[in-house]
Amino acid sequence: MLTADLKKMEQGSSIFEREVRKLAVPVCKLFLDEQGQIVPVTFNPEGKPLNTKDAKPVAAEFRHIVQAGGNRLLTAKRKNLSPTLGQRAAVLFSGGPAAGGHNVVAGLKAVLGRQNVLLGVRGGPKGLLNGEFFTITDKDVKRILNTGGFDFLGSDRTKIKTTEQFLQVKKVCAKNKLNALVIVGGDDSNTNAALLAEYLYPEVQVIGVPKTIDGDLQAGKFLPISFGFDTATKIYAELVGNILQDTPSSRKYWHFIKLMGRAASHVALEVALQTRPAVTLISEEVAARKIPLRKIVDDLAQIVIKRAKKGLKHGVVIIPEGLIEFIPDLTDLLKTLNDLMARHAASLKNLSLAKRREFAAKELQSEQAALFKSLPEYIQEMLLLDRDSHGNLQVSQIPTEKLLIDMTAARIKQLSPDTPFATNSHFFGYEGRCGAPSLFDAAFTFNLGLIAGSLILDKRTGYMAALSDLHKGGRVLAIPLTGLINVEKRHGKDEMVIEKALVKTNSPAFKFLAARRRAWSAADVFTSPGPRQLWGPAANQMPISVALNQGYASLNFKL
Amino acid sequence: MLTADLKKMEQGSSIFEREVRKLAVPVCKLFLDEQGQIVPVTFNPEGKPLNTKDAKPVAAEFRHIVQAGGNRLLTAKRKNLSPTLGQRAAVLFSGGPAAGGHNVVAGLKAVLGRQNVLLGVRGGPKGLLNGEFFTITDKDVKRILNTGGFDFLGSDRTKIKTTEQFLQVKKVCAKNKLNALVIVGGDDSNTNAALLAEYLYPEVQVIGVPKTIDGDLQAGKFLPISFGFDTATKIYAELVGNILQDTPSSRKYWHFIKLMGRAASHVALEVALQTRPAVTLISEEVAARKIPLRKIVDDLAQIVIKRAKKGLKHGVVIIPEGLIEFIPDLTDLLKTLNDLMARHAASLKNLSLAKRREFAAKELQSEQAALFKSLPEYIQEMLLLDRDSHGNLQVSQIPTEKLLIDMTAARIKQLSPDTPFATNSHFFGYEGRCGAPSLFDAAFTFNLGLIAGSLILDKRTGYMAALSDLHKGGRVLAIPLTGLINVEKRHGKDEMVIEKALVKTNSPAFKFLAARRRAWSAADVFTSPGPRQLWGPAANQMPISVALNQGYASLNFKL
Repeated sequence: MLTADLKKMEQGSSIFEREVRKLAVPVCKLFLDEQGQIVPVTFNPEGKPLNTKDAKPVAAEFRHIVQAGGNRLLTAKRKNLSPTLGQRAAVLFSGGPAAGGHNVVAGLKAVLGRQNVLLGVRGGPKGLLNGEFFTITDKDVKRILNTGGFDFLGSDRTKIKTTEQFLQVKKVCAKNKLNALVIVGGDDSNTNAALLAEYLYPEVQVIGVPKTIDGDLQAGKFLPISFGFDTATKIYAELVGNILQDTPSSRKYWHFIKLMGRAASHVALEVALQTRPAVTLISEEVAARKIPLRKIVDDLAQIVIKRAKKGLKHGVVIIPEGLIEFIPDLTDLLKTLNDLMARHAASLKNLSLAKRREFAAKELQSEQAALFKSLPEYIQEMLLLDRDSHGNLQVSQIPTEKLLIDMTAARIKQLSPDTPFATNSHFFGYEGRCGAPSLFDAAFTFNLGLIAGSLILDKRTGYMAALSDLHKGGRVLAIPLTGLINVEKRHGKDEMVIEKALVKTNSPAFKFLAARRRAWSAADVFTSPGPRQLWGPAANQMPISVALNQGYASLNFKL
Repeated sequence: MLTADLKKMEQGSSIFEREVRKLAVPVCKLFLDEQGQIVPVTFNPEGKPLNTKDAKPVAAEFRHIVQAGGNRLLTAKRKNLSPTLGQRAAVLFSGGPAAGGHNVVAGLKAVLGRQNVLLGVRGGPKGLLNGEFFTITDKDVKRILNTGGFDFLGSDRTKIKTTEQFLQVKKVCAKNKLNALVIVGGDDSNTNAALLAEYLYPEVQVIGVPKTIDGDLQAGKFLPISFGFDTATKIYAELVGNILQDTPSSRKYWHFIKLMGRAASHVALEVALQTRPAVTLISEEVAARKIPLRKIVDDLAQIVIKRAKKGLKHGVVIIPEGLIEFIPDLTDLLKTLNDLMARHAASLKNLSLAKRREFAAKELQSEQAALFKSLPEYIQEMLLLDRDSHGNLQVSQIPTEKLLIDMTAARIKQLSPDTPFATNSHFFGYEGRCGAPSLFDAAFTFNLGLIAGSLILDKRTGYMAALSDLHKGGRVLAIPLTGLINVEKRHGKDEMVIEKALVKTNSPAFKFLAARRRAWSAADVFTSPGPRQLWGPAANQMPISVALNQGYASLNFKL
């Protein structure tokens, strides 16, 4: 017996997917003509260039773009009723997936319309090198609208760096008569977009679209956030909120929850603002205040003990994925161990981990030796695993949440042996990358697609689509990629890169947390944000940290 | 700067929580008078008693209830316009939390109205023994309506078994002038409710409410499912769906996902029906078909290899929490090891785990020795940890998902060394117990509260509130607890218990999976159910397995 609903599921969609595809996405007024049809816009450049501290070397590296004036912020001023037609644009996804990618494609298709061709690149940058293109149809767009994931195109992490690769891209573009390439990706992918824009100038325009759940690709007033961040943090915040609600219900567990987000702590900060747990660690603060591991652990133990005295034998600790690389004494220890391992590579090669531990304990200076010995054995051993090709350890492999649980437990035993401390650990990551986009991300990405498409039809290159003033209709912008690029040392040599935006300890969002976290740890004052809603009165919320940092007057976005 | 929204959050609620509290909960027509006000109902008993195979011993054990005729199914026939008034009822939560508990309280309060008193018991059965009562107000109900968790009352796992405990409950009830006690819990708690009903007869009526996310408390046509199951499976299904969407997006990982649910595989089955992963293991099938661990692992390896040949280097495997206890050869091995450990307790006591491994490998007979040696070392060591007071191992501690990953990887190396097999493991559990209730659970629990309250005002005892025909307005029922109780051997002696409902391999839901799983593993045909919606066109879905097993004509519930 198959019900009607199940029959439809057999064709491959959940009830939610079928309904969400019909959901109208809000569009900035500027993109709508009198009949409410979508039309592209034209852009006006600001007076003076947008630069980083490295204006000079950047101008030299991106000579063509800069000389053509492509280094100034663009503002959309009016509808473009006579766009260049007959364009052939291709879009690709680069790096880890983020919710809303499919709506970028939908926005591009909508604004390019039937008189231009939109191609999809299968499998990311690698697919571009291999020339894996296909034509995107209106039917495709109907199917993917408002759905999560990058699976429509697929993605990968290939970096286009070598001269051969650049040449290969040029060939592929020529062979497929491409006028434009849209690269949807994070900081590295947009750096790549800039390099390609310069290399392919003037034949092929290259436009970037800011994607990453980590939220570390931002440009202040010009770009409040990258897409995917809102959906990922709403997914993690629901789970953290559910667990917070569980703690006073079952009254016995501390949950240590590590959240994806690479180096930056934007995700941890946003989830904390949405849920108000007992403890939130922010990597950037740990680094700025040079807080040693010992102190982090001692503070945790003190909070557990204080709460237990009030009868609160439970709590939640939020830990950003990148924390370990921001703890000063631990990073010093890692450097020392990296050198040690490099210097004694030969003799260590065939030693068991146990033997390596004895060796390290012997070789290390007093303070570092003490820190090393204070770590759980399984962590000591992880720190002595063979290094990668750059001589570094895969720090992301270290289970920070378990490390902190074990060290906090040990510290509690010293300070107050009778304090109960039953724990669970979690790592939320993959769950948040491919969920159906929140209404915010669905709208944000569709409009970014409209902007990227408009930039193509306005014959711009080397730009990143951007949208600000999200609380009052949206301000349609394009940021010159050269205006984001700095010179950074990576693996010992200078590279042109877009700097990762980390959490600023003087930002309104961080200060909001800092002013309240003591109260949040002293009692259970958590909130449970619930599952993100696509319909109804709770559907329009945007990230709290974005609203705070941009100084918006409301938590609800409006486009 | 605090926005208006943040100011409200400061008072302790998310936007979602504030809005969801205003959401109207659907109520069975029978509970509404002409003015649409909530009124209680009266019940009529069926002709003959509802019995299990153990009718005789049960009738003896529950003499008073049975003689009073409290062993027959009750059906609500009409509104109760002259209920007994001035009642004092108390409600408690028992065991692990489940979404909707707060709405049971809200339903009770609504139907008992102002002319009766509803007390809350703080901290579950233990709180009952300590007489921790407080009066529940209309204001409380406004605050908790449609919110997740058990934190309004709290819960615990104390079992009321000893004569002293029963006597203590009797005293506490007398002291607080209670006429009725509502116990919200799972199979064990409802067994307890029956024992209390018999012991406290006739002074105090005892009513049970069927709760558990595991879905193992069911009664066929009379009770399609327990509350909390729908919300938990919707939460897990969204996460599994997100990860499924991630796999063809990033194209490199196999995710092994263990799902909470104790012994029964209802949760795993429901989540599989909602998402259609490559592999779903069902414990009850493994036991019924006596599938050895070797075969489970080999099948997994074959599927990974087959998919890789098609370019699918990714997939999702769903694993029920209780699987290990259903794998025949593994459970035999555990029994043997339990005996071995018991027999040699003294000599093993001070042996290292490594030494214990050598000892076990030596002592075991050929086949079991081979199985033991085929397990990863860390699992071998876990199997040799000291036993609990009953001489058993805490099997739930064994990381089944990692065990299967490691053994599958080893098998793939034997069969096809070049097949890529990058993996991630997950355990979803606590995230699902305290989420905001789905619309289904919110309505189901509010109506269960109305039924429990009506049973009190209709002077019934020893009953469990039940609701069926969920697709066509709901059928209001009460199941005699004696009709669910069997005699089972537990720790060597006969006990009266409500039998756990396991997945039946001849049930429509299981057959639906069995008929399709080959197709689901052969290609990516997953669906992503998305976050549960409280508003809009996707808000009324009920569990697929319930709709199938009950033979409903739609996936949408209607009350």
